[in-house]
Amino acid sequence: MSQAKKKNYYDNTSERIVNVVPLGGLEQIGMNITAFEYRESIVVVDCGLAFPSTEMLGVDLVVPDITYLEENREKLKGFFITHGHEDHIGALPYVLKSLNIPVYATRLTMAIIDGKLEEHEMAGIVERHIVKYGDVVEAGDFKVEFIRSNHSIADSAMLAITSPAGTILHTGDFKIDYTPVFGTMVDLPRLAELGKKGVLALLSDSTNAIRPGFTPTERSVGETFDKAFQDYPNSRILVATFASNVDRVQQIINAATKAGRKVAIEGRSMVGIFQLAADLEYLRIPEGTLIDTESLKDYPDEKTVIIMTGSQGEAMAALSRVAAGQHKRITITPSDVVIFSSTPIPGNERAVSKVVNELSIQGATIINKETHVSGHACQEELKLIYSLVHPKYAVPVHGEYRHRMANAQIARELQIPKENVFMLNSGDVLSLSSEQARVTGSVQHGGIMVDGLGIGDVGNIVLRDRQNLSLDGIIIIAMTFQRGSGELLAGPDIVSRGFVYVRESEGLMEEARNICLQAIDYAKEDSRYVDWGRIKNQVREDLGGYFWRLMKRSPVILPIIMEVE
Amino acid sequence: MSQAKKKNYYDNTSERIVNVVPLGGLEQIGMNITAFEYRESIVVVDCGLAFPSTEMLGVDLVVPDITYLEENREKLKGFFITHGHEDHIGALPYVLKSLNIPVYATRLTMAIIDGKLEEHEMAGIVERHIVKYGDVVEAGDFKVEFIRSNHSIADSAMLAITSPAGTILHTGDFKIDYTPVFGTMVDLPRLAELGKKGVLALLSDSTNAIRPGFTPTERSVGETFDKAFQDYPNSRILVATFASNVDRVQQIINAATKAGRKVAIEGRSMVGIFQLAADLEYLRIPEGTLIDTESLKDYPDEKTVIIMTGSQGEAMAALSRVAAGQHKRITITPSDVVIFSSTPIPGNERAVSKVVNELSIQGATIINKETHVSGHACQEELKLIYSLVHPKYAVPVHGEYRHRMANAQIARELQIPKENVFMLNSGDVLSLSSEQARVTGSVQHGGIMVDGLGIGDVGNIVLRDRQNLSLDGIIIIAMTFQRGSGELLAGPDIVSRGFVYVRESEGLMEEARNICLQAIDYAKEDSRYVDWGRIKNQVREDLGGYFWRLMKRSPVILPIIMEVE
Repeated sequence: MSQAKKKNYYDNTSERIVNVVPLGGLEQIGMNITAFEYRESIVVVDCGLAFPSTEMLGVDLVVPDITYLEENREKLKGFFITHGHEDHIGALPYVLKSLNIPVYATRLTMAIIDGKLEEHEMAGIVERHIVKYGDVVEAGDFKVEFIRSNHSIADSAMLAITSPAGTILHTGDFKIDYTPVFGTMVDLPRLAELGKKGVLALLSDSTNAIRPGFTPTERSVGETFDKAFQDYPNSRILVATFASNVDRVQQIINAATKAGRKVAIEGRSMVGIFQLAADLEYLRIPEGTLIDTESLKDYPDEKTVIIMTGSQGEAMAALSRVAAGQHKRITITPSDVVIFSSTPIPGNERAVSKVVNELSIQGATIINKETHVSGHACQEELKLIYSLVHPKYAVPVHGEYRHRMANAQIARELQIPKENVFMLNSGDVLSLSSEQARVTGSVQHGGIMVDGLGIGDVGNIVLRDRQNLSLDGIIIIAMTFQRGSGELLAGPDIVSRGFVYVRESEGLMEEARNICLQAIDYAKEDSRYVDWGRIKNQVREDLGGYFWRLMKRSPVILPIIMEVE
Repeated sequence: MSQAKKKNYYDNTSERIVNVVPLGGLEQIGMNITAFEYRESIVVVDCGLAFPSTEMLGVDLVVPDITYLEENREKLKGFFITHGHEDHIGALPYVLKSLNIPVYATRLTMAIIDGKLEEHEMAGIVERHIVKYGDVVEAGDFKVEFIRSNHSIADSAMLAITSPAGTILHTGDFKIDYTPVFGTMVDLPRLAELGKKGVLALLSDSTNAIRPGFTPTERSVGETFDKAFQDYPNSRILVATFASNVDRVQQIINAATKAGRKVAIEGRSMVGIFQLAADLEYLRIPEGTLIDTESLKDYPDEKTVIIMTGSQGEAMAALSRVAAGQHKRITITPSDVVIFSSTPIPGNERAVSKVVNELSIQGATIINKETHVSGHACQEELKLIYSLVHPKYAVPVHGEYRHRMANAQIARELQIPKENVFMLNSGDVLSLSSEQARVTGSVQHGGIMVDGLGIGDVGNIVLRDRQNLSLDGIIIIAMTFQRGSGELLAGPDIVSRGFVYVRESEGLMEEARNICLQAIDYAKEDSRYVDWGRIKNQVREDLGGYFWRLMKRSPVILPIIMEVE
């Protein structure tokens, strides 16, 4: 295309189209990543991972399929990150291996990303830019502005993404906190200003859109801590919370300081983020407050607080190990008070209950009321944002369908015409211009499972095998035959794992062996040559039938045939 | 012991001791079973199952270890059942196989038990006695009175168990419902009367003891149904609820009748209990109201209601299949309204969310607010029972530790001395007399896992194998050697399941084969005779190390050696 033609093309207002392409984050909580494409430029907002669903046996995490970005490699201008939570940054080390483009983020967010890149030995390789609130990054045809926001982690940002087609506001995860613990509140005046100038589209956080009202300020939790610390002046206090919630940790330190207690930090991720936030001065720790867990024994119990991981009942986290009596340095006593500063994420309820029961049996007092507030906007906050920004188009993001639908409902109530509210699927290409908006296509997308160091080598067949193995185990039938004659030289030897306790089932295994012998004989009959496939099938069928009739179980049955000369 | 001596013994008041022996139900929700022993008599209250915890892979259900009852077989007088829920009756068919003693229950409860016995082909074998509220069963040294109660299933009873040592009241699961849907409220006057005469011990339901206030009446849900039916006069309505909650089903029928709608029933357990409750007239169904699911197509959508299973997101239940588009006769349309008349049981939240999202995506309206009330007493109800019965001893039952602890706290607040409140463990023998009470021993107890038809043949070793198989799959290395010479005649052949997709990993498998060959050579070196165990160990170790270094995965590695002459 010639320069002249291209210029002409640009001048044609009706052609100023920006594509919004979410590659994840719309079917589930997690794996947030959205591309914005204007002609030869693409900017990408966030690059998160998802945690595996229960049926993804053995899978550690799930990262987005970025084929679409790889295919448009030359257009990519950078990743723009809203905040430092796993579901927004966790896939970066995996994705940056194949797409080494610049990363833009605020200071704390970048420090957390740096930690991840170091773990993956990619620290020196990636171009990183720390931005401040109010900064505008030029990225091809885009300008991306970082706007101060509030969330359950400090330094979170909303992004105003401006192209010749107009400005799109992406809220990231947010709440409106008039009295945040660190820094100041979300920059509502800037949102109003953008709204006045005209916002083409608003992509907003749907996580809490089914909840009426306002999310309380983070500061309200501080009052609960103060009260608990007053109510239990003679107890050691353990507080479990999310490692990344630096403001929560700050409030625990504040309450401890007021009560004249020393603070110890426990749990790998808690220690990691604590150190990092303290170094960057996102935490204000009065001198002499912090002690090693090792030094806890030098202080009376009632003069100490331990902040730790494990608020979700995670099996290997500090509090879970303490509760199970498996922690090296911390043992529960009946005078201990344990504060769960969190609510169980759906799916973790049973694990949390287990930890609560274990602690209770050892006599600990449990506090889990008014010890947590959400980091996400409820309905009234969403209404405020819609009213300030009054976008032409609304695209609910972040959340399951029912959450996004509730957000869409709010958009409609606030006078955005129904046809301007878009319930997208991952992979959809939403083409927006000041004149019109519609889904114009779909690109490759999906989740890629990571198991150990393997990325994408576990697929549905492997998962189905794991599922089957997990239910009734496996039975292996090993047989050695003479090549040519087909004479059975050794076996059938039957070995099982996860089926029955073999030492108590000798009769069963003997009978199974007989069935295999008969199956082999049957498969060899009426056949001019010996067909290994036929023998395997017959063994599988007869043995499977036998176990089902006898026990109503369906182990994986795996015949192995070896040939010798 | 001579008759004279025995008489003497009885006359000695201080020797009148009754043992309370819970064999389950104290460490978890489920598997409720408690024995009461007075000299040569034992009566057993309930015989429930527990659902497997997430780590019990492939296990269908868990039944109590009844060794203690088997060892005291000659003393057993019968099972006395409080109500027809699985966690109170589900283990009966398994336990009655080895302990064929009479079963006493109210009419609906017995009908549900009968259904279970039929499934297990035990219908003709078991001695069954249907009792009415107020009936007193003589059982050896015990008299057992069935007292009218309220719960989320009709015909539930409290049991007053009287022996020469005194009366013990067992509440079973209960709530206080002043306006129940079927029948009348819990027989508080009788409880007061027993309290006046003197109750030795109260065993009471702890499920909701952590909740303040009162559980609302079942009738309040009826108002929600009426409102929903009015609000959506142009929609088909689907209601998912627990099959056993006959009163809930009645209220749906009532709302449907008022709104002039036909009712269809879907889901195996729903149809089963519906039929049974209708036959016994626990359900009042106006003539012409009920239709087959097949006939739904003959009526306009807005004139129908479908009552179905699946309120917990159970994968195979009717509503889940409808949501997934896998139901033969029911397809969701955007005008449908789906009422979840339940709250998710802890652990089921994700499954329920999945169904809600699937339904929402198809356009259905979801109603899940004020559509359910609990069947268990909250704190104020427990206080009322303690106040009427004012027992000498309190034993919180039914619930996790934290629930029972909350119940114990209530007992203490209501002036039962701390030393008279017992937090028992399953297997404890609590010996009670009018003078004293203490735990005097412990008997064998625990959960026995049922997998298919196998009872107790899956133990911890098998479960650990299933767990390992589920995480990274299995790799089998088959080798055939010459006996004596130790020459490798065939293999090593490598077969895997649940590890990687083999067709895309040929290089990996080739390298693994080389490692096995080297391991075999190494194991044979420096050894005067060929040691199969040594070869297996070497292969396991080298291959395990290889996969861990390469992929950070630990599949189960299973070498199989065959010998030929």
